[in-house]
Amino acid sequence: MAGSRGRPRDAAIDQRILAVTREAVVRQGYRGLVMEQVASAVGVGKQTLYRRWPRRPLLVFEAVFGGGAEAAGILPDTGTLAGDLAAVVEAQRLLYSDPANVELLRGLLADCLGEPELLAEFQRRLVRPRLASLETVARRAADRGELRPEIDTEFIAELIGGFMLVHVLVYGGSAEDFGPALADVVVRGAR
Amino acid sequence: MAGSRGRPRDAAIDQRILAVTREAVVRQGYRGLVMEQVASAVGVGKQTLYRRWPRRPLLVFEAVFGGGAEAAGILPDTGTLAGDLAAVVEAQRLLYSDPANVELLRGLLADCLGEPELLAEFQRRLVRPRLASLETVARRAADRGELRPEIDTEFIAELIGGFMLVHVLVYGGSAEDFGPALADVVVRGAR
Repeated sequence: MAGSRGRPRDAAIDQRILAVTREAVVRQGYRGLVMEQVASAVGVGKQTLYRRWPRRPLLVFEAVFGGGAEAAGILPDTGTLAGDLAAVVEAQRLLYSDPANVELLRGLLADCLGEPELLAEFQRRLVRPRLASLETVARRAADRGELRPEIDTEFIAELIGGFMLVHVLVYGGSAEDFGPALADVVVRGAR
Repeated sequence: MAGSRGRPRDAAIDQRILAVTREAVVRQGYRGLVMEQVASAVGVGKQTLYRRWPRRPLLVFEAVFGGGAEAAGILPDTGTLAGDLAAVVEAQRLLYSDPANVELLRGLLADCLGEPELLAEFQRRLVRPRLASLETVARRAADRGELRPEIDTEFIAELIGGFMLVHVLVYGGSAEDFGPALADVVVRGAR
């Protein structure tokens, strides 16, 4: 469990930190959340908190939407690309149809886009594991012969992962639009 | 030229404001730009500036990347969807391959995502005219029979407009990746 430096991390404490953060976001909103208050509610020093989550958006995103490990654990595997993408776009529809999620994701993204180092850490911890998970869906499709050989599975992962993000968060569209259309165009366009 | 309220707007003054803003962004960076300094360099009152551009990101985006009218004026029309999309993705490659543009777009997007009213105005003035222009490309393709009847031209516009945005700005990918692949998947997937 431990890295090469310092004490083994206590997974139970991490889980309590995440649970307290979730509650605090619901109660006070993202902008109102103070990391020191989370630390003191859990009964740990703020250094313990900052060592694991050096910046507030990293903590809040993981608390509310799950970290990299969770992202890898929720892959659909229906046996066809069409089936897997239907499951993925339905999960996205659910996520983005909650106005509280949309507001929170916009705030988190705003903070991360405003700072290069924070953005890089956000990508490393939280974005890439999600894309890797979607790429697994694409790679399975490639193994089944559902993708032309020249189709890049990373490209398919980003196409599937990025569309609803920009449609809802940036363009202000509804989560009810276009999910099945996206899945359909990808399945037809990549085969 | 004039709206129903107040004096006709002086297009030459607007152009000077935009030119001074462009120079100031190059010299001082987006975060260093002060709207009052732009107004005084042009020799107009700050109310003149704020009446036209109530918030800094709206002014800077229009100065550097063009307003809604410019977006509508640069449509490719090659006679095929494949040709038009090749032109669109090449323009996007050029835009996003300049690190200064990427940094500026991230800063502008960060500010807009952080404030609902500003985001709505950003979408209305700057995003929707660009999407409308891409939708014209898709509508022409539909008129030529290049899209299945059930394909929504707004969806195609967002797919084309949003991919490189999220790939470069959010995921941190290179502008050299995936543009032709996107055009290809859309052409095949939508027909």
